[in-house]
Amino acid sequence: MSVHSLTINSKRLEKRIADLAQIGKIGETGVCRLALSKEDRAAVDTVKRWMEEAGMTAYVDHFGNLIGRLEGENPAAPVLMMGSHIDSQPYGGRFDGTIGVLGAIEVIHTMVERQITPHIPIEVIAFCDEEGCRFNKGLFGSRGILGKLEQGELERTDKDGITRAQALLDFGCDPDKLQDCVYPEEKIASYLELHIEQGPVLESLDSPIGIVTGISGPLWLTVEMNGFAGHAGSVPMPMRKDALLAAAKVIAKLNDIASQDPGAPTVGTVGNIEVFPNSRNIIPERVAFTVDLRDIDIERRHRYEKELRQAIEDIAGECGVTYSIREDTNSEPRYCAEPIMDIMRQESSAMDVKAPELMSGPFHDALALSYVCDYGMIFVRCKDGISHNPKEFSTYEDISLGTELLYRTALRLSQNPN
Amino acid sequence: MSVHSLTINSKRLEKRIADLAQIGKIGETGVCRLALSKEDRAAVDTVKRWMEEAGMTAYVDHFGNLIGRLEGENPAAPVLMMGSHIDSQPYGGRFDGTIGVLGAIEVIHTMVERQITPHIPIEVIAFCDEEGCRFNKGLFGSRGILGKLEQGELERTDKDGITRAQALLDFGCDPDKLQDCVYPEEKIASYLELHIEQGPVLESLDSPIGIVTGISGPLWLTVEMNGFAGHAGSVPMPMRKDALLAAAKVIAKLNDIASQDPGAPTVGTVGNIEVFPNSRNIIPERVAFTVDLRDIDIERRHRYEKELRQAIEDIAGECGVTYSIREDTNSEPRYCAEPIMDIMRQESSAMDVKAPELMSGPFHDALALSYVCDYGMIFVRCKDGISHNPKEFSTYEDISLGTELLYRTALRLSQNPN
Repeated sequence: MSVHSLTINSKRLEKRIADLAQIGKIGETGVCRLALSKEDRAAVDTVKRWMEEAGMTAYVDHFGNLIGRLEGENPAAPVLMMGSHIDSQPYGGRFDGTIGVLGAIEVIHTMVERQITPHIPIEVIAFCDEEGCRFNKGLFGSRGILGKLEQGELERTDKDGITRAQALLDFGCDPDKLQDCVYPEEKIASYLELHIEQGPVLESLDSPIGIVTGISGPLWLTVEMNGFAGHAGSVPMPMRKDALLAAAKVIAKLNDIASQDPGAPTVGTVGNIEVFPNSRNIIPERVAFTVDLRDIDIERRHRYEKELRQAIEDIAGECGVTYSIREDTNSEPRYCAEPIMDIMRQESSAMDVKAPELMSGPFHDALALSYVCDYGMIFVRCKDGISHNPKEFSTYEDISLGTELLYRTALRLSQNPN
Repeated sequence: MSVHSLTINSKRLEKRIADLAQIGKIGETGVCRLALSKEDRAAVDTVKRWMEEAGMTAYVDHFGNLIGRLEGENPAAPVLMMGSHIDSQPYGGRFDGTIGVLGAIEVIHTMVERQITPHIPIEVIAFCDEEGCRFNKGLFGSRGILGKLEQGELERTDKDGITRAQALLDFGCDPDKLQDCVYPEEKIASYLELHIEQGPVLESLDSPIGIVTGISGPLWLTVEMNGFAGHAGSVPMPMRKDALLAAAKVIAKLNDIASQDPGAPTVGTVGNIEVFPNSRNIIPERVAFTVDLRDIDIERRHRYEKELRQAIEDIAGECGVTYSIREDTNSEPRYCAEPIMDIMRQESSAMDVKAPELMSGPFHDALALSYVCDYGMIFVRCKDGISHNPKEFSTYEDISLGTELLYRTALRLSQNPN
C-alpha cells in the first residue's frame, strides 16, 4: 500500500508530530519533556486542542492523563481505548510514545471526517508519566486509572526534592481526587497502542510495521559480589578474591545462557555495574551489577534464571567471593489478544503490507492495560533500533502505515464490540 | 630473635609511631595526612624534633623533604640514605611510609647512643608526597632530589584548585630554589627503605619480615571498547554489540594470562571500569577499563602483554565492538642490589629470623632512588595484606625486627662504603 492511497491523513499526522517535537525541543531532533513539567503541560494543552479539532471532548484527569472521547452509539458500553504517552526521557526522541497518541487522534479525526459513528465509545489517552525517569517509577497514569498505584507513590521525589503529589498540584491536578478517576475494569473493552519498535528487528526484516505478540516479562535482579580488596601489585593471583573477576565471568555466562537457543527471542543484559573502590591499582572488593532477563516464554525464562543462579554460585565459589541476589522486578509475559492480532493480520494483508509478528522487550502503557482487557499493539520500524535518544528516527511513511493499520483495527473493534 | 634482645630501642620506636599517628588521626586507627597539608607540616615538625633528639642535624628542603644528617668520619663521601615518607592516603593507615622514616631515625638514635660514628655520612629522609593522591602524581620528593621532575608538575592542582607551587609556598618552601636541592648522583652511595609489605605473602609464609628482590614494573593500560547501545529488551542477542560483554571477556582472559604460571609472581588486575550509559535496561555502548600488569621478569611481562593484546583483538571481533588501547605507564622492574641483599641475608640469619625474599608489587621512594644508586628494601608483614586503609596493621614486634635488620644493614653499609 502506498502512502497516497491511505485512508488516514498522513500530512496532518506528520505536521502534528513535527509541531509537538517543538515543545521541549533539544538540539535538532531531540526532546526533553519530563512528566508533569512545564513542557509536558504545554504539550498536553496542544494535544488537547488537536483532540477537540478531531471531534472529541477532552479533559485532563487528576492522574495527569489527557483523555479525549468520541461518543459511541451506545454511550454506556465499555470503551475502546487507544493511546500511549507524550512525556519523554531527559535526552529523548520525537517518536517514542508520541506516535501512539497522535496516531490515535488521527484515527478519530479520519472517522469523524468520514462521518463514522462507532458503536461503542472510543477514548484516546495520553497517559501521564509512562517513562518514569523523573520519579523513578513509570506507567503512572495507566496504572492509576486501573487503581494499581502502590503505597507511597505520591511521596516519591524527583532530584529537586519535589514530590509527585506537589508536581500533580503544579500541573493542575488534585491528588486527593485520584479515586474519582479510576476506571471500573468492565468499562474498558480493549486497548490498542501504536509505538515505535525501539529495536532493530523490523529494520532487519525490511518491514515498515509489525504486529506485537506480547510484552515479554522482564526479570530484574541486582547481584552483589563481595571479595577482598588489596593492592594490585602485591596480592598473588592464587590468593585473590577479586569481585570484578567474578562479575565478569557471570556477565559472560549470562550471555551464553540467553544465547543458547539461536531461534528464541530471549534476551539477557547486564547494563549497570558499580565497582568499589574502582581504583586502577586496587583489587575490586565489591561489585554490584544488574541482570535484565526477558522472554516471551516464561517457562524458558525460569529455566534460564535457574541456570544463571547456579552459575553465580559456581563462579563465586571458584573466585572465593560471597554474593547476594536481590529481585527488583519479576513480571510475567503479557500476550496480546489473538482476536485483535487476527484483525491486524487480515487488515495488514488487505493493505498489502508485510507485518511480521514480534515480541516487545520494552514495556508500554499496554502492559498495565493487559491486566484488565484484551490488547493489541502495532510496532513501527525505527532506524538502527535507537530510542531514548535524539537520534531516534522513524519515517513518516512507516508511521502512516502503522496509523492506517491502527485505524482499520479500531474501526473493526468499535463496530463489533463483542 | 626475641624483641627483648634487639639492639634498637623498640619501646622508643613504638612510642614515636603511636605519637605520629595522632597527627591527622581519623577514627580509631586511621590517618589522613595529605602531602603539604597542615597535618603534614605538623608531622614534619614533630619528626624533625625526633631527628634532632637522635643526634642529627635536620632541615626541610624546598621540595618539602625533611632531611636529617648524621655526619660521617669522611664528610665528603657519598651518603648512605635511608627513608620513606610520612604523608598518607586520604583514608590511610598508621604504618605505610611512617615505619621507614621512624625506623631509620631509630637506627641513627641507636648508633649515636652506642657512640658509633659511621665512616660515611648517613641521611634520613622523609620524602615529600610519595602517595601522590593530592596532585595525582607521586614520588615527588624522591624524584625531586634526583632532578627527575617532569614539566608542569608545579602547576598541577589539587581538588580545590591549589597548585603544587602554591602548596609548597604555604609549606614554607620556595619553588624557585628547587635546583639548589638536587643531589648530584655520585653523592648517594646507597639507599635503604623499610616498609610494610602491603600484601599478604609474608603473613601466608608466617614470616615477620622479608627481603625485597626488586620493585616490579607496572604496565598500565586503559582499554576502551565501543559497541552500540540499544534497549535491553528489544535487541536480539545475535544483533548485539555489547561493550560490557566484550570487556567482561577481556577481564576473565587477563586473569587467565596472569595466572598461567602458578609459581610466578606475575599479577594482572582490572581495578577500574566505567560504563556508558550504565543503565540497567540499555545495552552498554562504551566501556573503559584499566589494566595493571606487573612482573619482576620483564620478558614474561612483555609476552603476557602480547597475549592480552591478541585476546582483546579476538574478543572485539567476536563481540562486534571496536577498541583502543592507551598506555598510561610502562615501568621496567628495578632489582635490589645483590650485595645489599646478601648483607640482609647474613644479618637476618644471624638474628635467627626467617626473612623470605619477595618482590614488591607497589612502588616506593626506592624506585626513584634505584636509578642512581644501589638500593635495598625490607618488608614487614602486615595483617591480611591491607594497606591504604585505617585497618592497615603490623605488630610492633615485627616492625622492631625489621628495624633491627635495617640497623644491622646500615651499620655494615656505612662502615664499609665501598
